[in-house]
Amino acid sequence: MNVLVINCGSSSLKFQLIDSESENVLAKGLCERIGIDGSLTYQPAGGEKVKSEKAMPTHTEAIQFVIDALTDSETGVVKSLSEIGAVGHRVVHGGEKFASSVVINDEVLAGIEACSDLAPLHNPANLIGIRACQKLMPGTPMVAVFDTAFHQTMPEKAYLYGLPYEYYEKYAVRRYGFHGTSHSFVSKHAADFLGLDLNNSKIIVAHLGNGASISAVLNGKCVDTSMGLTPLEGLVMGTRSGDMDPAIMEYIAKKEDLDIAGVMNVLNKKSGVYGLSKNLSSDFRDLEEAMENGNKYAAAALEVFCYRVAKYIGSYVAAMNGVDAIAFTAGIGENAGIVREKVLAYLGYLGITLDAEANKKRGEDFVISTADSKVKVAVIPTNEELAIARETVALV
Amino acid sequence: MNVLVINCGSSSLKFQLIDSESENVLAKGLCERIGIDGSLTYQPAGGEKVKSEKAMPTHTEAIQFVIDALTDSETGVVKSLSEIGAVGHRVVHGGEKFASSVVINDEVLAGIEACSDLAPLHNPANLIGIRACQKLMPGTPMVAVFDTAFHQTMPEKAYLYGLPYEYYEKYAVRRYGFHGTSHSFVSKHAADFLGLDLNNSKIIVAHLGNGASISAVLNGKCVDTSMGLTPLEGLVMGTRSGDMDPAIMEYIAKKEDLDIAGVMNVLNKKSGVYGLSKNLSSDFRDLEEAMENGNKYAAAALEVFCYRVAKYIGSYVAAMNGVDAIAFTAGIGENAGIVREKVLAYLGYLGITLDAEANKKRGEDFVISTADSKVKVAVIPTNEELAIARETVALV
Repeated sequence: MNVLVINCGSSSLKFQLIDSESENVLAKGLCERIGIDGSLTYQPAGGEKVKSEKAMPTHTEAIQFVIDALTDSETGVVKSLSEIGAVGHRVVHGGEKFASSVVINDEVLAGIEACSDLAPLHNPANLIGIRACQKLMPGTPMVAVFDTAFHQTMPEKAYLYGLPYEYYEKYAVRRYGFHGTSHSFVSKHAADFLGLDLNNSKIIVAHLGNGASISAVLNGKCVDTSMGLTPLEGLVMGTRSGDMDPAIMEYIAKKEDLDIAGVMNVLNKKSGVYGLSKNLSSDFRDLEEAMENGNKYAAAALEVFCYRVAKYIGSYVAAMNGVDAIAFTAGIGENAGIVREKVLAYLGYLGITLDAEANKKRGEDFVISTADSKVKVAVIPTNEELAIARETVALV
Repeated sequence: MNVLVINCGSSSLKFQLIDSESENVLAKGLCERIGIDGSLTYQPAGGEKVKSEKAMPTHTEAIQFVIDALTDSETGVVKSLSEIGAVGHRVVHGGEKFASSVVINDEVLAGIEACSDLAPLHNPANLIGIRACQKLMPGTPMVAVFDTAFHQTMPEKAYLYGLPYEYYEKYAVRRYGFHGTSHSFVSKHAADFLGLDLNNSKIIVAHLGNGASISAVLNGKCVDTSMGLTPLEGLVMGTRSGDMDPAIMEYIAKKEDLDIAGVMNVLNKKSGVYGLSKNLSSDFRDLEEAMENGNKYAAAALEVFCYRVAKYIGSYVAAMNGVDAIAFTAGIGENAGIVREKVLAYLGYLGITLDAEANKKRGEDFVISTADSKVKVAVIPTNEELAIARETVALV
C-alpha cells in the first residue's frame, strides 16, 4: 500500500509517499509559505528536485498541489488518488488521551482539538492539514500518529512535576515528552540491530537534532524522557534553553524589561547552543569548525551540550537501574562523532568503551562501542516518516 | 576562642556561641518577629530553653538582647563581650566575587551589597545583621561565610545555562548553588569518616532538608550542584518545585491569571511535596504516616521526591565518571530511612547494597551500605554553625 505521510505546520507542509511493502520513498516534498504566497518543492525518487511558486491561500490548495504533483503524468509516481491507500498524519500533542496511533474519526478530531491548549502552535495546524486532506481525499482512511504517544507509559513518578497536584488535575500539567515516533522507532530498531530482546532490555535513546530529547526505554516501554509539558525542557538544543532554574524567568524579565511571552521567545529562539555561542550558529558543523579555530564560546556551547547529554544518560541509567544499550540518532546524533565521543567519555564507569575508528563512520546503523564494552552503543538513523507509514498501515 | 555564629533573616536571627577548641555549643537561640513585636528564645548548654517577649524594633535591639543573654550573670555563658573572640556571619550569596570565607571590611560589605540583586530576600538581611553586630561589638573581628562559596569551583560546563551568553556577562546569570557550607562540611567529614583520601575521591552529598540540594565533589572540590541562580532549582523540596519545564511558567500564569511574581510565589511556597500531597504537609514524617494510611498523594509525593534524588545522583556519577561515596545529610537525609532506602534501590547498578539494619539507626555518623558494597553510603549529620565557626577561627 502507498501511504502519504503528512507533517503539517501553520504555514508549511512536509510530505512523503511511501510504498509500505518495499518501504521505499516514492516521492517527497514540501509546501512553504502557505497563506502568504506559496511554493512547492517536489522530488520523485531518483528524479530531480523542483521548486515552483504557487498561490496557496490555504492548506487545501497546498494539498491539492501535492496530489497534482504525485499524480502528474510526467513527474508523478502514481496514476490516480486511488493508488494512495492511506494518509498518516503527524500530530504533535495527544495529551493523556492518545497513548497510541488511531484511525481518524470525528471523535478523534475532537480529541486532538481538546489537546490544542497544550500545543497551541502545533495541534491547530495539524488539524487544518487533516481536514484539508479529508476534503480532497474523502474515501481514504487517515491515521493520526502522535509525538507524545510513545511516552504515555511513563510512571507517575516520572511525569509529575513538583507542583500543586491540582495543576495536574485541572490543567493536565505533567511531563508528556515529544519525538515519540523517533524514540519508539529507534529503540525497537536498536534492540533488533544489537540482538537484544526488546522485552527484556534497558535502552537509552539520544535523539539529538535541532530539537533534542532523550528517553529511557525499559522492556520496550518509555519510562522517562527529557522533554516535558512542551518541547522546551531538557537538553540544551539548537536555539532552546532546555532545563534552567525556573526563577531565571523572573530575573531576566526584570533585567530585560520583558513579559513572560518575551522571555519565552528568548528561551525558544535565542538560547541553546546558538545563544551560548554568541549567536554564531545552531548548526554543530559551524560550532565544531569555530571551536577548532579557537572560538571559546563555540567550544563552551559544545561542552555544555555534551555535558547535559551525559548527565541525562546518567540519570536514566539510575531510573532503570542499569543500561544495556545507548542509541544516538537524528542530525547531530547521527553525524557529530565529536559529540558522541565527548558524551561517552563521561561514561567509562558503566564499562563503556568507544571504538574511535567506528565512531568516524557515517550512514546506516553501526556500532561504535568496542566488542568488550559492557554497554552497546550504536548510531541508528531515525526515520519518522517511515515510522508513521508503518503505524498507519498497521491500523487501516 | 568563643565564636558567635549569626544567621540573620529579614525578621529573625539565629545564633550559637561555640567554643572553637572543644567545638561545644555554649548557648544558642533565636530572635523572632524583629520589627514587628519581638521574642528571644535562649538556651545555655545543659540549661533550660526560655522564650521571652521583647520589643525589637530593629536587628540592633535583637543583637543587644542576644549579648545580654550570653553575658547574663545567672543564665549567661560568658562574663563579658571580651570573651567572644569573633563573629561568623552566614551570608547567602557571594556571587562570583567570593569563592571562600573572608574577614569583613568595608570592601567586603560593598561586595555583599553588590550581590543583593542575586538574593534580594537574603543578602540585605545578612548585611543588616552584620552592621548591627559591628555597632555593638566594634572591636570584634567578623567573618562572612557564604552559602555559594564552596560551589565556585564548578567548571563552566556545569555553571552555564543554555541561555544567551550575554546574560552571563551582563547579569551574572549562571548556576551558583547553595548550602555550600553544608556540602563542604559533609564532604570533608564523609571522606574522613569513611577513610577516603579527600584529594582523590568522588563524593556525592545529598543535603535533604526542607530546602534540598545535591552536589558532586571531586577531589574535595565541588564540580556540580542542583540549586542554581537561586535555591529554587533542582530537587523537589518541601514547598519548592525544583526543576520543571520553563514553559510551565507561562501556561500556569495564563490558567491561573497570575503574573510572574504570582507564579514564583506558587513555585516557592505552594509546590514541592507540600503541593504534590494536596497541601497535606511538607514534613516527611507526616507524608510517611499518610502514605502508610493509604494516602495516594502523599505516596506519590514521596516517590517523586526519591526518584528525583536518584536521578540527580545518577547524573553526578556521570559528571564525575564514577563515585566512591554517597553521604546523606540534613533533616530528611539524616532521619528518613525510607527515603534513603527508596533512593538507593535505584542504584544497584553501581554495586551499592543497603544494610537495612544499619539504615534504621539514628544519631551521629554511620554507614548504611554493606561491607561489600562497591560504593560506601553514610549518614553524616551536617552542622553549618560549627562549619561557620571553624571558617571564622581559621581567618581571625
